[in-house]
Amino acid sequence: MVNVAILGYGVVGSGVAEVLTENNGQIDRKAEEDIRLKYILDVREFPQSPFADKFVHDFAIIENDPEVDVVVETIGGARVAKEFTERALKAGKSVVTSNKELVAEHGYDLLRLAEEHGVSYLFEASVGGGIPIIRPLNQCLAANEIEEIVGILNGTTNYILTRMIRAGLSFEAALKEAQQNGYAEQNPTADIEGHDACRKICILSALAFGRHVYPAQVSTEGISHITLADVAYADACGRKIKLLGRAIRLEGGKICVYVAPHLVDGEDPLSGVEDVFNAITVRGNAVGDVMFYGRGAGKRPTASAVVADVVDAAKHRKTKKYLHWDQGDPELVVSPEGLESAWYVRMNASIEGVRAALGEISALARPGAPAGEVAFLTGPMTAGALAEKLAGLGTPASQIRVLDKNH
Amino acid sequence: MVNVAILGYGVVGSGVAEVLTENNGQIDRKAEEDIRLKYILDVREFPQSPFADKFVHDFAIIENDPEVDVVVETIGGARVAKEFTERALKAGKSVVTSNKELVAEHGYDLLRLAEEHGVSYLFEASVGGGIPIIRPLNQCLAANEIEEIVGILNGTTNYILTRMIRAGLSFEAALKEAQQNGYAEQNPTADIEGHDACRKICILSALAFGRHVYPAQVSTEGISHITLADVAYADACGRKIKLLGRAIRLEGGKICVYVAPHLVDGEDPLSGVEDVFNAITVRGNAVGDVMFYGRGAGKRPTASAVVADVVDAAKHRKTKKYLHWDQGDPELVVSPEGLESAWYVRMNASIEGVRAALGEISALARPGAPAGEVAFLTGPMTAGALAEKLAGLGTPASQIRVLDKNH
Repeated sequence: MVNVAILGYGVVGSGVAEVLTENNGQIDRKAEEDIRLKYILDVREFPQSPFADKFVHDFAIIENDPEVDVVVETIGGARVAKEFTERALKAGKSVVTSNKELVAEHGYDLLRLAEEHGVSYLFEASVGGGIPIIRPLNQCLAANEIEEIVGILNGTTNYILTRMIRAGLSFEAALKEAQQNGYAEQNPTADIEGHDACRKICILSALAFGRHVYPAQVSTEGISHITLADVAYADACGRKIKLLGRAIRLEGGKICVYVAPHLVDGEDPLSGVEDVFNAITVRGNAVGDVMFYGRGAGKRPTASAVVADVVDAAKHRKTKKYLHWDQGDPELVVSPEGLESAWYVRMNASIEGVRAALGEISALARPGAPAGEVAFLTGPMTAGALAEKLAGLGTPASQIRVLDKNH
Repeated sequence: MVNVAILGYGVVGSGVAEVLTENNGQIDRKAEEDIRLKYILDVREFPQSPFADKFVHDFAIIENDPEVDVVVETIGGARVAKEFTERALKAGKSVVTSNKELVAEHGYDLLRLAEEHGVSYLFEASVGGGIPIIRPLNQCLAANEIEEIVGILNGTTNYILTRMIRAGLSFEAALKEAQQNGYAEQNPTADIEGHDACRKICILSALAFGRHVYPAQVSTEGISHITLADVAYADACGRKIKLLGRAIRLEGGKICVYVAPHLVDGEDPLSGVEDVFNAITVRGNAVGDVMFYGRGAGKRPTASAVVADVVDAAKHRKTKKYLHWDQGDPELVVSPEGLESAWYVRMNASIEGVRAALGEISALARPGAPAGEVAFLTGPMTAGALAEKLAGLGTPASQIRVLDKNH
């Protein structure tokens, strides 16, 4: 018998309770143990809930109950969640979480704490919702040196971009629609400015490259400046605008990690990932490119990943745990400044002036473009080289990197 | 120190030796053990190989060497491979394989034998080449009741279909090209008639539904009868023809497992899977649809999956193994006879006659269609109902199921 306590009865926490109960038979078979939900911690009361008899309001009850083997942390944030995670690990309980903020900020310390106390700290649900990615990256691709990870890691922004592309909505209108559909929060900053995607690429980078990568080390750009003009020009060259988190192993052992919108070629499987779906492509030196695709958020998909970790924690109660990465290093992560790529640029200038400054470019057209607007794709160069060459012509209204997986 | 022996120095076996050596540091870190290639068994001599000193010609040397912990079986087929696998398991060695034929025919017996001797029998590489699918299905989706698996499981046929669609080659010409490029064998029957895809859907079904599914239980249709006319009509309705392996959980606990070409909607991510790539979509009752995509074959991708299993076997030497399914059941698997879906039909008839027989259909057109040829999509019905309704009009020249994931 394995006893589980859930911390926080919000969307994910209630989904975990639901899936644990509904798929009980299947879960017990896979775990080769009976898995039982013993407690749910929340400050609120839920008298109508089918789990009403399981609610407690004091974490110490869970912490001090030697029967509790696995604690599911779905509180979110990096304060209370951190305290309870640390106390649970110190009390010899494995902790499973969907909390990407906590893992991205404190993963190294929490993994070390777990190791010290002989328990697991697992977070499959922190990246890609229900998509299996943490375990495949760590286990199934164990034979590979990882060369690059690039992914659509945030469903909210992908929904907004999809609606801009498909329905011709402005960024503001698409954001409003996303909020109305429950795909975006009332304060959407963490999503639209790329912070959520940043946390996720930090976690994937740490797993792939073996050292903690902190969000503060990662250059992060969101999508709030993307306009319908940009969407139309991207379409004109057979590409789609996608917000990508990206980590590239460079010669010499450094890694380039960043979050930014990109123009993605229509032939790239990432370009077909729409709405709230996420997809993550991993390139290993043996396997080549593999892609993982599915719902990146939502109650039941996220709960699916959390419960898979509960099963794993239950099965590994008496053996060694496997997730591990080393301490961060301020020298490890470099910005994409040095990364050459083609660029999409939109600006007020003459195409002749642009050609004189940049040499060969490919000019783009869209219906209804105002006089004086030009848009084009450049050859491969760094952002710095582009800025230097365009300096005499004015500042681009928009400038977006074109994804080239061979950078 | 974990000692590995490779059986068979063909494409996959030599790839395993290469990846084990090249990515040695990464692999030892993941395994938390030194993994060393000790023997390669082959009837041939390879004096020029960098591994020349490791070759042996007598399996008994491996079998009787107590230092050998993991045996990699890349012989293929179900005869010698079966004998050596059994002997290795009985000698207390874990076995890792890419051999889908052996797993599909004898997986239950070999898993039981492994369990009896306290060792692992692992076969991540048997489905989808380097794509992580066996472990994600078994572990990451452990919280789900699996409802459906549908996938492009054979790279050769997907390459042929892609070349028919993109380059307008006939089936015969595309097959010849695939053979010239090394994507198809000189005797291509196992690929083009669907037998290879059949073995893979058997393995996935057994894992997802918990009982051995034998290839002989699975209705299997290949692609050798697909013509450019069919490709053109599919294109006319925004679909692509793909050979799919499919397993559906039915009400009452039976499963419908089959292999057949399907018309796949252009919006479905499976439709964008081209050339030798494979992709497998799994639908769970918690996670919804997740898709796994990558190279389904080839030396290094397959070796990547084999070596991941070697790492896993090395890490689990002293603990319980997790792959398991029960004995097969002749009553478990049903044919797709009872499965309603829309159908694509091409035949010589009048469209009025077809409408009179079938009611509402959607007629399709292609340039250069000969007089008397009609093609159309039907409403949802079983194959039997369709045959009955068309009986008075003649036999279809082509009839292909339309993929509807909600069948």
